[in-house]
Amino acid sequence: MLTELIKSARVKALLPDIQAFMAAEVFPYDLAWSKLPFGELEPILEALREKVKARGWWLPCFDAHYGGMGLSLMEHAFISEAIGGSPFGYYLFNCQAPDIGNMELLHLAGTEAQKEQFLQPLAEGQFRSCFAMTEPEFAGSNPVRMGTIAKRVGDEYIINGHKWFTTGFDGSELTIVMAVTDPEAAPYQRASMIIVPTDTPGLQLIRNLSIMGHAGSGWPSHSEIRFENVRIPVENLLGGEGTGFMLAQVRLGPGRIHHCMRWMGICERAFDMMCRYAATREIEDGVFLGEKQMVQQMIAESRAEIDAAKLMVLSTALLIEKAGQRAAAEQISAIKFFTAKVLGDVLDRAIQVHGGLGITDDTILALYYREERAARIYDGTDETHKASLARKILKKYRGG
Amino acid sequence: MLTELIKSARVKALLPDIQAFMAAEVFPYDLAWSKLPFGELEPILEALREKVKARGWWLPCFDAHYGGMGLSLMEHAFISEAIGGSPFGYYLFNCQAPDIGNMELLHLAGTEAQKEQFLQPLAEGQFRSCFAMTEPEFAGSNPVRMGTIAKRVGDEYIINGHKWFTTGFDGSELTIVMAVTDPEAAPYQRASMIIVPTDTPGLQLIRNLSIMGHAGSGWPSHSEIRFENVRIPVENLLGGEGTGFMLAQVRLGPGRIHHCMRWMGICERAFDMMCRYAATREIEDGVFLGEKQMVQQMIAESRAEIDAAKLMVLSTALLIEKAGQRAAAEQISAIKFFTAKVLGDVLDRAIQVHGGLGITDDTILALYYREERAARIYDGTDETHKASLARKILKKYRGG
Amino acid sequence: MLTELIKSARVKALLPDIQAFMAAEVFPYDLAWSKLPFGELEPILEALREKVKARGWWLPCFDAHYGGMGLSLMEHAFISEAIGGSPFGYYLFNCQAPDIGNMELLHLAGTEAQKEQFLQPLAEGQFRSCFAMTEPEFAGSNPVRMGTIAKRVGDEYIINGHKWFTTGFDGSELTIVMAVTDPEAAPYQRASMIIVPTDTPGLQLIRNLSIMGHAGSGWPSHSEIRFENVRIPVENLLGGEGTGFMLAQVRLGPGRIHHCMRWMGICERAFDMMCRYAATREIEDGVFLGEKQMVQQMIAESRAEIDAAKLMVLSTALLIEKAGQRAAAEQISAIKFFTAKVLGDVLDRAIQVHGGLGITDDTILALYYREERAARIYDGTDETHKASLARKILKKYRGG
Amino acid sequence: MLTELIKSARVKALLPDIQAFMAAEVFPYDLAWSKLPFGELEPILEALREKVKARGWWLPCFDAHYGGMGLSLMEHAFISEAIGGSPFGYYLFNCQAPDIGNMELLHLAGTEAQKEQFLQPLAEGQFRSCFAMTEPEFAGSNPVRMGTIAKRVGDEYIINGHKWFTTGFDGSELTIVMAVTDPEAAPYQRASMIIVPTDTPGLQLIRNLSIMGHAGSGWPSHSEIRFENVRIPVENLLGGEGTGFMLAQVRLGPGRIHHCMRWMGICERAFDMMCRYAATREIEDGVFLGEKQMVQQMIAESRAEIDAAKLMVLSTALLIEKAGQRAAAEQISAIKFFTAKVLGDVLDRAIQVHGGLGITDDTILALYYREERAARIYDGTDETHKASLARKILKKYRGG
Repeated sequence: MLTELIKSARVKALLPDIQAFMAAEVFPYDLAWSKLPFGELEPILEALREKVKARGWWLPCFDAHYGGMGLSLMEHAFISEAIGGSPFGYYLFNCQAPDIGNMELLHLAGTEAQKEQFLQPLAEGQFRSCFAMTEPEFAGSNPVRMGTIAKRVGDEYIINGHKWFTTGFDGSELTIVMAVTDPEAAPYQRASMIIVPTDTPGLQLIRNLSIMGHAGSGWPSHSEIRFENVRIPVENLLGGEGTGFMLAQVRLGPGRIHHCMRWMGICERAFDMMCRYAATREIEDGVFLGEKQMVQQMIAESRAEIDAAKLMVLSTALLIEKAGQRAAAEQISAIKFFTAKVLGDVLDRAIQVHGGLGITDDTILALYYREERAARIYDGTDETHKASLARKILKKYRGG
Repeated sequence: MLTELIKSARVKALLPDIQAFMAAEVFPYDLAWSKLPFGELEPILEALREKVKARGWWLPCFDAHYGGMGLSLMEHAFISEAIGGSPFGYYLFNCQAPDIGNMELLHLAGTEAQKEQFLQPLAEGQFRSCFAMTEPEFAGSNPVRMGTIAKRVGDEYIINGHKWFTTGFDGSELTIVMAVTDPEAAPYQRASMIIVPTDTPGLQLIRNLSIMGHAGSGWPSHSEIRFENVRIPVENLLGGEGTGFMLAQVRLGPGRIHHCMRWMGICERAFDMMCRYAATREIEDGVFLGEKQMVQQMIAESRAEIDAAKLMVLSTALLIEKAGQRAAAEQISAIKFFTAKVLGDVLDRAIQVHGGLGITDDTILALYYREERAARIYDGTDETHKASLARKILKKYRGG
Repeated sequence: MLTELIKSARVKALLPDIQAFMAAEVFPYDLAWSKLPFGELEPILEALREKVKARGWWLPCFDAHYGGMGLSLMEHAFISEAIGGSPFGYYLFNCQAPDIGNMELLHLAGTEAQKEQFLQPLAEGQFRSCFAMTEPEFAGSNPVRMGTIAKRVGDEYIINGHKWFTTGFDGSELTIVMAVTDPEAAPYQRASMIIVPTDTPGLQLIRNLSIMGHAGSGWPSHSEIRFENVRIPVENLLGGEGTGFMLAQVRLGPGRIHHCMRWMGICERAFDMMCRYAATREIEDGVFLGEKQMVQQMIAESRAEIDAAKLMVLSTALLIEKAGQRAAAEQISAIKFFTAKVLGDVLDRAIQVHGGLGITDDTILALYYREERAARIYDGTDETHKASLARKILKKYRGG
Repeated sequence: MLTELIKSARVKALLPDIQAFMAAEVFPYDLAWSKLPFGELEPILEALREKVKARGWWLPCFDAHYGGMGLSLMEHAFISEAIGGSPFGYYLFNCQAPDIGNMELLHLAGTEAQKEQFLQPLAEGQFRSCFAMTEPEFAGSNPVRMGTIAKRVGDEYIINGHKWFTTGFDGSELTIVMAVTDPEAAPYQRASMIIVPTDTPGLQLIRNLSIMGHAGSGWPSHSEIRFENVRIPVENLLGGEGTGFMLAQVRLGPGRIHHCMRWMGICERAFDMMCRYAATREIEDGVFLGEKQMVQQMIAESRAEIDAAKLMVLSTALLIEKAGQRAAAEQISAIKFFTAKVLGDVLDRAIQVHGGLGITDDTILALYYREERAARIYDGTDETHKASLARKILKKYRGG
């Protein structure tokens, strides 16, 4: 109910149409997503993208100057939930990671030339991009430990390094790479972001990581890549030298809101399937699955937890809007681990209620179950966020 | 953050003062509450009640005509949290169960004579009242099974029956008793509520139930009582004959919001104590308890869960205000079991962080731990609310 | 320690050799299992099977007359754990489901002709078999509801029906099908088991079910199949008419012990990987992942739970050996849901400790995570076993 | 079943008689325990102790030379469970903490004179003793931080210090105090144990700690005490100087087995009550509480967890018998936190199933619920044991 208070008129008008579109045009492809390689999906996706564009829903959270709808963070949160119920929902609206994060970076810190060359076509969906930060040699939770070096020689950076979990590298036109440009600087000012066209000599795809049994190709892939003496003109530096860590933080902030609300979309989808199945699956003559208390328990707990998680995310989005991302640091940590847990629990219960059917790819549940195990790991593990939140709280209790 | 949107100007002005009052004037009695019998507490309580009155905070959620502040349900929710951090907070503001529920009943359904005779002095805090519904012979979750009979004979009801968990009977002036007046009526129209002065012949205290080691006396007591041919004039009928069940539902609705927000007050109190202890307890030279990740985990999870629970309760309160209690039935069930679990978990963690100290009565935590175990039982067990919520949801998925 | 008491001398001698074999010869194929289709795995598997035979470990739990080692249920439990740490461990020793269950059925209830024709080559590993019981139209937890009919006409049964989750149908030589032979009989005496060569006309593969993203082929596949007027000579009836349900129970009993101990093997494997990673993964200079208390918590809880689960399974195996399967019905239910939960929790924690690496197929963990989600569903869901156990217990408390 | 293997003939003979005695003679006092002060309980307890003695069950785990039964650790484990179902069970058999631990210390390290003066009458139950180790100023999990000093001056120690949680001080004849005798020694050799008659000048009772609402008196009390220049002859040193820490470890080891098995006794008692109530409580006409799946779930999970916990404890006891306490350090940590959790969960469920009745003192459940919250804290918190277990495991994975 509280959520109604913060739903803008624009969102209220949009939501029913978008929900109807998802149900009628996108959900029927559930089974395709988990079975077809990206190359075979692309024609379907392109056709759906055209429908999205035709309805005026393209790039919901991005600047109208670049063809977006210009929704606020909060407005986009509601849209995220509505389109999160399909694994390709975000892609269809061109607000998928990692591209949307890259667009935000280019918008914020890009030069006019960079915007024209890279941001404009990304916004139009002409090509895809990726973001190369994580390295296999260093634990992800500590961004100041990084082995990739961009050494300035004349008007060029020469980049050497090893990255993985570079989402969507396969088939993309450009990557934004995080690399150390000044190893002697203060820890959080050592790294910079540099735009690297993926056909630059020396930039090699080692492999697409197989994730939870999915070999990966195209957009839904995660690559291991290597930079060997990759030479990039200094004009491709994004923001100033040493601003890499700061930009990464900026990039992650709204991204976490988007993820969390997308997860809420998944939760609602799974919840709906669980209820429908429980209400209609006959287990004995005239007795339906949903009459069993153990099933009722799963439904009731899921409903309460989804509602709770959604309120927390929206409350955090509101705080970011009013007071900025830094002021919301505690809440962002809290929603990250709280909603990721709700997501995992709701998917687990939805599968359990479906019994044998739940583990097959005859429903979308099994895909979400394996793909979204990562939710408790990426963008900061549960453990990292819990420790971080607690330390921020405890700091207020000490000394004086 | 979302909660700020629904905080009225009046509440914003009140809260800091009430919080300061609680911390300065009430929390210092923490240890007294768990050690002194009610008789010895009463002078302390009366003095504090006078201070509350003097500040204009008496009866926050009740009609100004009767000396209350006339706050809305939502406004009272915020106040509830603020005063919930002491076991006697509600009592001090004269909004304690069961009296406040009785006042609401009398206000809603009482005749002018009943209001003058019973409501006015209750509102002034001149005496206390109680509510006799639960019976040992019948499971609490089924209100249509009831053994207490009020048989009309002439101008009187003759009441016979056996009740327990009659909170605050000891020392009260009147009880509102739920009794079957027409065993032949439709199930939900069999019972009525009747106002019974506690000195009426035939109404006997069997014993105060010892609850979690607390013998009980005065207000914080729960009695087993017997009605033996208790004769009451028909004028003492509250509302019409057969309206007992309906009135009970009315009584429970806002009561659950109050309970849940009171629990949030307890949670915040326990959370504050847990953090303070973790931040200041040295476990090795220069190493503080709060540096341990297992403690950080307890703090972080508690913070997230309290925030989630609070948002849910406030959202439900808003729904009740906008659409009425019946429209909020699902949400009310959800917050009942969700917040009761959060309450139990937060108290458990706060005790664990305090170690040996946590199980002593040197802090208020141990009192809350044992007293509030009941939160998952009274006003509908977790199981009842979960089953009820799930069935309401599933009903929408069936056939047609 | 208690487990040592029940380890026979034979098992004590065998275990170190088998464990060493698994580590040296089988675990190196971890990554192959999750990436290669069965057809490409088969040559590897055959070579390993030859090694197993050469060491005298073939068919550990089966009658020596058929080339097995003749280990007792308890002895096999220990072996199960040792070979459970690879998804193909059981297959290598020719004690994989569903074949071993079929061999047990044929051994118990088969005629001499059936044994010669079907059991002998299965025991030798010449071909594979499958077991067709579950039907998509009927909830799995109720074996008396079954749509497949085998109608006797002259010397033949004419079988019509629809089955799914027929594990290993793809590429197998025979299926044992459960079908109703007398719809008028008492509920538990309606069904019979019939041996059906898979090339019999009318028996069709509809599809291999895609399970958790795995299309399935050969042994690790689960098929949906249809019987359309499949004609089978009455000589292929297994056991007497109407004994289907009884035989199914017999088949499931030791199977559950095997599953549970195999899961323990998975747990130990995952636990070992989790500890190794925690001990050696540097997260800051000189600081290792395992120094973090949240990781220590995951390790400690996993260790305790695995030990507990293992003791329960072995205790149940002992009870079956001493008193028979029926006497152990409560314990069998208890270990089924208890160990399946431990399995799921340990795998989840092992992945979490591995971070990003954990969700890739660079370790075996992600394979187990998605494959073994089914553990809480097959052979009776958690819910079925919990309800069944509780009802058996409560029965003793009733009546007079 | 596994447990039968390790039940000695003696235990098999004893158990039915002891169980019958507990049910017939001790359980009827359930309600008395939670309501009467120790002084009023003592005559009841003495009469029951006489019955125990008369049956030959006195001091089951102690040397026959001192009038005990001389049972092994394992045998005593079974007895512990049998007598653990009453809060006074241990007391009746004279194997209650802290006396039994003190007897073990005196037996192990006492001089002949100490044994005659202190051990003999303790064994006979002539008086009670206590053990003063924990200090409010220092976190309990670190035994080398201790403020109590025993300074040797001539033939005396002069003891100064502050202790709390000195169980049973009230009314006892002697305390064994842990004090630093050499602050310059290696950390684990600084402290010694000294026997102090409680009437020695300078030893003062500050107060009995109120624990979970229980003021405490006599044996079931926990005192805060102060040593002010308490002068004790050096003959009262127990063991050598500097052996305090080592002796404390020795004292804790079997104590943890006893605690864990006593908790199993509580679990079985609570489980029995939960089942009986569920089987017989009618919630609608002809419908019993135990028919509800949510209740069945609580029963089934409790049964499995109790069985698991019991097997772990017995397995650890066996390991201690065979290989000594040091070899069982990991298992002891595991059972401490595992069984304490099972205890808490089972009690919580038993109360929940009982509904309102469960929180009253009309059953023993509420007493156990509040008293045994301490189980996760004393003798090492859950967190301490988990961290300790994990570190021991991880040590094996490092280096080499």
